[in-house]
Amino acid sequence: MASMATILNKTPFLSQPLTKSPTSDFPFKASVSFPSRIRRGGAIRAGLIEPDGGKLVELIVEEPRRREKKHEATELPRVELTSIDLQWMHVLSEGWASPLGGFMRESEFLQTLHFNSLRLDDGSVVNMSVPIVLAIDDEQKASIGESKRVALFDSDGNPVAILSDIEIYKHPKEERIARTWGTTAAGLPYVEEAISNAGNWLIGGDLEVLEPVKYNDGLDRFRLSPAELRKELEKRNADAVFAFQLRNPVHNGHALLMTDTRRRLLEMGYKNPILLLHPLGGYTKADDVPLSWRMKQHEKVLEDGVLDPETTVVSIFPSPMHYAGPTEVQWHAKARINAGANFYIVGRDPAGMGHPVEKRDLYDADHGKKVLSMAPGLERLNILPFRVAAYDKTQGKMAFFDPSRPQDFVFISGTKMRTLAKNKESPPDGFMCPGGWQVLVDYYDSLTPAGNGRLPEVVPA
Amino acid sequence: MASMATILNKTPFLSQPLTKSPTSDFPFKASVSFPSRIRRGGAIRAGLIEPDGGKLVELIVEEPRRREKKHEATELPRVELTSIDLQWMHVLSEGWASPLGGFMRESEFLQTLHFNSLRLDDGSVVNMSVPIVLAIDDEQKASIGESKRVALFDSDGNPVAILSDIEIYKHPKEERIARTWGTTAAGLPYVEEAISNAGNWLIGGDLEVLEPVKYNDGLDRFRLSPAELRKELEKRNADAVFAFQLRNPVHNGHALLMTDTRRRLLEMGYKNPILLLHPLGGYTKADDVPLSWRMKQHEKVLEDGVLDPETTVVSIFPSPMHYAGPTEVQWHAKARINAGANFYIVGRDPAGMGHPVEKRDLYDADHGKKVLSMAPGLERLNILPFRVAAYDKTQGKMAFFDPSRPQDFVFISGTKMRTLAKNKESPPDGFMCPGGWQVLVDYYDSLTPAGNGRLPEVVPA
Repeated sequence: MASMATILNKTPFLSQPLTKSPTSDFPFKASVSFPSRIRRGGAIRAGLIEPDGGKLVELIVEEPRRREKKHEATELPRVELTSIDLQWMHVLSEGWASPLGGFMRESEFLQTLHFNSLRLDDGSVVNMSVPIVLAIDDEQKASIGESKRVALFDSDGNPVAILSDIEIYKHPKEERIARTWGTTAAGLPYVEEAISNAGNWLIGGDLEVLEPVKYNDGLDRFRLSPAELRKELEKRNADAVFAFQLRNPVHNGHALLMTDTRRRLLEMGYKNPILLLHPLGGYTKADDVPLSWRMKQHEKVLEDGVLDPETTVVSIFPSPMHYAGPTEVQWHAKARINAGANFYIVGRDPAGMGHPVEKRDLYDADHGKKVLSMAPGLERLNILPFRVAAYDKTQGKMAFFDPSRPQDFVFISGTKMRTLAKNKESPPDGFMCPGGWQVLVDYYDSLTPAGNGRLPEVVPA
Repeated sequence: MASMATILNKTPFLSQPLTKSPTSDFPFKASVSFPSRIRRGGAIRAGLIEPDGGKLVELIVEEPRRREKKHEATELPRVELTSIDLQWMHVLSEGWASPLGGFMRESEFLQTLHFNSLRLDDGSVVNMSVPIVLAIDDEQKASIGESKRVALFDSDGNPVAILSDIEIYKHPKEERIARTWGTTAAGLPYVEEAISNAGNWLIGGDLEVLEPVKYNDGLDRFRLSPAELRKELEKRNADAVFAFQLRNPVHNGHALLMTDTRRRLLEMGYKNPILLLHPLGGYTKADDVPLSWRMKQHEKVLEDGVLDPETTVVSIFPSPMHYAGPTEVQWHAKARINAGANFYIVGRDPAGMGHPVEKRDLYDADHGKKVLSMAPGLERLNILPFRVAAYDKTQGKMAFFDPSRPQDFVFISGTKMRTLAKNKESPPDGFMCPGGWQVLVDYYDSLTPAGNGRLPEVVPA
């Protein structure tokens, strides 16, 4: 997801002849043209896009066998999961990473690191750019011994899953970090949170999750699984589904982009394009707005009519955030295929952040959409690059940037937005609906030291 | 290429079900089985394997147009090449990187970094794991201005090539290093030699090389291009070509492996398997044995009858060495497809080295062959993992390691071999042919300070 800044997208998309040229700046050209990846003729099909590998791989034990499996779990060697491990288990259990059947074994891990994709038995290729792995330490490894199965436990001591036909292999942390992030600089949030202090071994295997994952935080009703989303999208008779990944509040520039995308999909002949507004719900870094506040803000945006509830599905994507730019954006796109999306909106510098050490962005702002457009296994997905929106002073609202009159536009960066909200100042009229803005102001207000002098916790994990 | 150590290869090759399982430890199983990648039935074909992309892309200007092109070159903005740039130009000019038509543009560079492969216009995929790029600095970029063409010059001021339809893009050094080597630790030889001090921009485009590259070092006769190799292999009626990449002297363990491979290919029904003994000729790190000495050693090995000249082609592979382990071994294999090889012998820790900072190998010794076996675009190549050879004291010669009597075997590491040669001590009889060993002793002898107190230069580049 891009920063809150409205975004400039001027770079020609692909300029060389060797590769298959995917949709360039579709659908944002003046002359509407079909992106090459949309099948013409038989193009507009009734059903949703197929999951990767042809079948959604759900890994939750059916009700009749849960009791028996729980009992089994208590008799196996134990591995205790961190909260991020549990989020990945959630992701795997519902099939976001289909056709992955559990935490990665070494050959999947190596393919992910080197090729950002997995080759299936039939020779076809699915995208897989981020390692979904489970680390254990020497002591845990020793306790597992020769067992071919282990039970996974949460931090409260409850069994949550069984991992079978396990494979334990070395956790090459430096190499994993370098190949995933393209840097090994100190200060990468996910690395510090989940890798640096993790064990020196990885354990992969076939996962059976004992029951559906719930967080009991009042937001579970938004956590639709890919199967549930597909059901909802089918109920709404969606013939095109365009996904919008985000980890920030929605402003009217985003809203403009989403409504404009729908309009253009209608122009192309789709009868009922549905927006999947899909905020990321797993681990995020400390200075991102927490999920609970973002969800309040997204609700206001729908209540205020900025987005049409009839044609929008708001749901939470349970994945943790890597902040791994061009590598991670592929994961964000691939997972949405599994939920039924066949269009994916990509912004400037998706999943990017500032370099943790040097004074620059970690990734080239254009690499994300370029890499995404060329990624193996994503050929079926139509990539929609962001069109630039900015605050148009002449209209007093967010509008697509017009390069012929740049003086009329104001770009409001994420930093500026946060500063305004923190200082309880107002953004220009029309930047964000008032209800949504108030949520942000309230959030920053809640951060000021409470009576006990401590800051309330801001990152749910 | 593995270290000189004879090599243990015990790890199961691939153990998980999601990926297409390639040849495991073929052809070294007791029961001969065809690797899955060899087409059965119509398997053994008359012609050589096709080059990547279907056609060998040679980029050398034909004689009648050379004068005209040289004149053109003198009128274009100039880019001066380093010796390593020239080696890559050589590689490109002869089609080792087919179907690449010049130094990489950004989309090729990004696909290489993220996917180790390039997607062609027809949707097919070729392997490409190592960036073949040309760096320029701010000043050179400014001097190029809006020109769409530049001339490439050697360090003597001679024009050597024209680059057309150019694209200049940022050189993300840290990311390039991290994604290619899986580390950014200081002390990687190629990085220090060719990247750290290189310019902040990369320039890609269509390459026309003004005449065939020659080094005039007495070894040009060994530098057969892929086209010349194909001609030679066809002349010899090869129906299988097995390539052996190396950057070290050949000992009898290697020789045993190569002759045994040939025997097994004959057993499989091939009538005339030819060995391509293919030492790397470009940049190598300072403590590797220089090319000129290695070639002397290889000649002795053939003279002494350790390998059969009738069924062996010795040629120099002009690529510089990255020491990038699992990433680079793909390049080593892919380039040999273009020269006509359909079998590739892979050792323990190919293209590996010690970690420049930590006390360990940079790569897991098994990752090279695993990654190679799963690499996109290499499906047509039959990967042959090393079988372990060691010095068998009971036979007084190199033999395949027999795990039932480990006490009979001595593993002679590269370090031990070098120490012996430096000290003019002899290895056990049968470790290396006497003529070949003498070359090594002479080489280390030549390194002792000459009359002037300086060490002679050891690394040709």
